[in-house]
Amino acid sequence: MKSRRDFLQKITLSAMAFPFAHHLQGSSLSKNITVGANREEVLRVAIMGLGSYGTRVAEAMQDSTRSKLVGVISGTPSKIKDWQGKYGIPEKNCYNYENFDQIKDNPDIDAVYIITPNSLHKDQAIRVANAGKHVICEKPMALNEKEGREMVQACKKNNVKLLVGYRMRLEPNTLEIVRMREEDELGKIMFFQGLSGFRIGDPNQWRLDKDLAGGGAMMDIGIYSVNGARYMVGEDPIWVTAQETKTDPEKFKEGVDETIQFQFGFPSGAVASCLSTYNMSHLDRFFLNGQKGFAELQPATGYGPIKGRTHKGPLEKPHVTHQTVQMDEMSDMILKGKEPKLPLDGVEGTKDLIIIDAIYKAVASGRKEKIDVTF
Amino acid sequence: MKSRRDFLQKITLSAMAFPFAHHLQGSSLSKNITVGANREEVLRVAIMGLGSYGTRVAEAMQDSTRSKLVGVISGTPSKIKDWQGKYGIPEKNCYNYENFDQIKDNPDIDAVYIITPNSLHKDQAIRVANAGKHVICEKPMALNEKEGREMVQACKKNNVKLLVGYRMRLEPNTLEIVRMREEDELGKIMFFQGLSGFRIGDPNQWRLDKDLAGGGAMMDIGIYSVNGARYMVGEDPIWVTAQETKTDPEKFKEGVDETIQFQFGFPSGAVASCLSTYNMSHLDRFFLNGQKGFAELQPATGYGPIKGRTHKGPLEKPHVTHQTVQMDEMSDMILKGKEPKLPLDGVEGTKDLIIIDAIYKAVASGRKEKIDVTF
Repeated sequence: MKSRRDFLQKITLSAMAFPFAHHLQGSSLSKNITVGANREEVLRVAIMGLGSYGTRVAEAMQDSTRSKLVGVISGTPSKIKDWQGKYGIPEKNCYNYENFDQIKDNPDIDAVYIITPNSLHKDQAIRVANAGKHVICEKPMALNEKEGREMVQACKKNNVKLLVGYRMRLEPNTLEIVRMREEDELGKIMFFQGLSGFRIGDPNQWRLDKDLAGGGAMMDIGIYSVNGARYMVGEDPIWVTAQETKTDPEKFKEGVDETIQFQFGFPSGAVASCLSTYNMSHLDRFFLNGQKGFAELQPATGYGPIKGRTHKGPLEKPHVTHQTVQMDEMSDMILKGKEPKLPLDGVEGTKDLIIIDAIYKAVASGRKEKIDVTF
Repeated sequence: MKSRRDFLQKITLSAMAFPFAHHLQGSSLSKNITVGANREEVLRVAIMGLGSYGTRVAEAMQDSTRSKLVGVISGTPSKIKDWQGKYGIPEKNCYNYENFDQIKDNPDIDAVYIITPNSLHKDQAIRVANAGKHVICEKPMALNEKEGREMVQACKKNNVKLLVGYRMRLEPNTLEIVRMREEDELGKIMFFQGLSGFRIGDPNQWRLDKDLAGGGAMMDIGIYSVNGARYMVGEDPIWVTAQETKTDPEKFKEGVDETIQFQFGFPSGAVASCLSTYNMSHLDRFFLNGQKGFAELQPATGYGPIKGRTHKGPLEKPHVTHQTVQMDEMSDMILKGKEPKLPLDGVEGTKDLIIIDAIYKAVASGRKEKIDVTF
């Protein structure tokens, strides 16, 4: 990987001698897989799991200039056919869950984006890594810290990148708040509040199946407040308390959390108060409070335009399709070694899992639980 | 009290025969103490404690048509002189903290509004009650449940009313949300959030003295979220968890809480998440979430205009000076036996104290504590 990255850095530098090369990359022509130096500026991605979010990512990638959907992995042949037709995917880049280890012999795929039920991520990611391909994994990265660490280890061993689909870590208004915090425009940070929830529909979906989801709302939507608390406050929590409430045990069965309130303490003394729920609407709000000012995002993590304001007025960064930006940026992270402002790699993903483990532990114990995300 | 109330109800009914009488009451002339039936429609109030909030109430009473500031109780002769000049208070209606029991012999004072440091409320309220005068007490009504119950008992024994200065329980936008909840426009209530805080200034003020304040931010500002949770959700909590954080132990000494996060559970399964702090600005927000809609107040409890919105749009009830409305309404409660939409009597005040006792207990134990506000 080291030598490959060195090589890529060299070609990036040489590309700077052709200032218009990038413009050409932006044209539709550039998205064909070409041979030669510039070829590697486009990340060639296979999507594993052709469900609704997989479809959203595929659509968003149509506008990506630095990534291209070139392959699929699915257990449903009819879906593969559909996608082949829609996105021009060659037969040789189509795999199922039995044979996708063979992707190691496919030089036309750089990375696999895993968008399958949570409990499958770990094994699938390790198989992709063992096939020598970069791993992009939807959140939650896995079910718990142990799985997260195994994934990080496997990717390290195979010299491939492991990135998590934390699209909000690339969102312009979010990053503007982070900039304001870092430049002390908010003063000492005192409080973060995250409300993450929606009313989930179909009771038979995998997200409500403990074996596939590894939990309930916390794994799916609460994780936005877990992750958000960290990048908004700019610290990792050191303790958590949590309270679970279940109003519909029919729909939210044993091990599938409906509503959890959780509170963090941070090393600086800042605190956070968060809510994760599958049974309330209108909940998508981040609020960061410092001694000199505040910042609010509402909606904070939805797909549509993120809206925000601070004590200085509204945040005005234009809307971008999060998944398009994510794939463009991940291309640069993988192919050019770019370091994003807010990291979204496997270590970050595992830190969230360490925290979620502690939240569930605090729910069970009824006590304040310590958190140590040291890696 | 019963027979007096009956009498008052009768004169109210007879006053209805003179539809313009009320208009006359609104004129400045009406605020002179007159003899005859209509006299008792104006509540004659003495303020005890001439500090900044006492001044605010006195000013607001200038616009009240149904109450009148007629007396003062203070330990500072120069303040009494000032107020006498400003509000035309006769010498015979001026008392100090030693002699105010003599108010029992003063037929020109109906009620005493206690606006002194928290730890003094209980004894002062009982002395006022024993003097046969109605008691209006600023929040927190006392330091704990035990004191609250003693006050309720003393007022009951003396057949006088005990009202608490919960001005938000009379605020129009707040009441509009309560109406929407009661008429099921919000659906089943799932979640309340209360953020109550400000950065307190002068470290030498009584509010930061454990002996006078009985605590810290919780007693002064956190109580808005405690009280708000109850009238917004429309239930009383049955459990609480709470976490204290102290970042400035110099300013916030032993027993004076700086920041407490607390969470409630309600019989219906609704939950609440609240923050009380003396060390953060920009915190005055209530949010109520139901399965059919939401309501937000921000600012929720400040003196200035309350602003709110729901899923149906902005709340548009006009601003009224809270303390003016409070004194007008309290006049009707005391003189006419009017029952407010949201009660604000001593039982309500004591319920908040029961809850605050449980919050402090939960902070100390680190565990979920049961709450029982049964009276």
